Amino acid sequence: MARRNVRDQLIVVALELFHTRGYNGCGVSDITDATGVPKGSFYNHFKSKELLALAVLERYQSLLGMDALKDRSKPPVPRLRSLFEGYMAFQAKWGFSRGCLLGNFGAELSSQSPAIRKVLKKIFERWCDAVAQVVQEAKERGDIDKRRDAQQTARFLYNAWQGAVINSKVTRSQAPFENFFAVIFDSVMTR
Amino acid sequence: MARRNVRDQLIVVALELFHTRGYNGCGVSDITDATGVPKGSFYNHFKSKELLALAVLERYQSLLGMDALKDRSKPPVPRLRSLFEGYMAFQAKWGFSRGCLLGNFGAELSSQSPAIRKVLKKIFERWCDAVAQVVQEAKERGDIDKRRDAQQTARFLYNAWQGAVINSKVTRSQAPFENFFAVIFDSVMTR
Repeated sequence: MARRNVRDQLIVVALELFHTRGYNGCGVSDITDATGVPKGSFYNHFKSKELLALAVLERYQSLLGMDALKDRSKPPVPRLRSLFEGYMAFQAKWGFSRGCLLGNFGAELSSQSPAIRKVLKKIFERWCDAVAQVVQEAKERGDIDKRRDAQQTARFLYNAWQGAVINSKVTRSQAPFENFFAVIFDSVMTR
Repeated sequence: MARRNVRDQLIVVALELFHTRGYNGCGVSDITDATGVPKGSFYNHFKSKELLALAVLERYQSLLGMDALKDRSKPPVPRLRSLFEGYMAFQAKWGFSRGCLLGNFGAELSSQSPAIRKVLKKIFERWCDAVAQVVQEAKERGDIDKRRDAQQTARFLYNAWQGAVINSKVTRSQAPFENFFAVIFDSVMTR
């Protein structure tokens, strides 16, 4: 039980540190210091920093709010907008300083860690599959242009959003998100 | 003269290393080792790694192909498409493994270095001003929807591209760029 708690604490602390300082911007001892455990005990829980990062990504994935996409009581286009509004609120909470861990790791670690790159790709695919279903629903209702390809649109949304997130870190502002909403819901997600 | 050459060599080598391994993924001694100069001489040229990174960003900016945007012998929409095709070819050259230094640094360093963040913001603004002029030209010719705001469109293009670049690193493929071209030139940059 205590062992399990230390593992969990390490994940929570590492998520915070990776998110604010990047993977290469903090070491195992920064993580154990911030968790308040001896460095030696780290390796009882994770064989490497990379394996910890994979556990952190798993945790981060649960923050993506994908379940709400299945709520058919809300029309598909507003449901998608809500998803991104949730992401924007998450960024606003940190004063637009943290970015998305998926984009940060993608930029920083795609070459460095094949294992992390593989998981990032899997999360991306899963996200796009869920969003493509909602886009398909919107097409079938005639809410958006029927010629639009659902998978293509989902992938485009993911990337356009990730770019907006990085720009929000660089400009420390909400403007890139407002820009995203204005362009996407006025040209891509329309009839 | 020799002094000038060492400075230039350090910039070229650091651009390569920052681009492939990230800012925090390599140290000053990696850079001096790869340049073949003693570590001590580094500080004759740059007071810090951060100041070197600023010089690297200046160099990188010259690779953005902005001059071609002024070539009015080509219609504005194909001119913009060529710009992005040039960026795609640049990524293809490295097997889609490096990403864009602007996006990489934005993701990795926006919190860590206010000086780098400031320069990234300035490059972004400059890029958007140049692209907005081409978008404006396309509007005036009636090639794209006249209701589209030129600055808003330029900023959207920048971010959507940066997101596609990261995704191309994660998926090691050209697909995110093809997706960008398909959606942008079929919905945003149209009448």
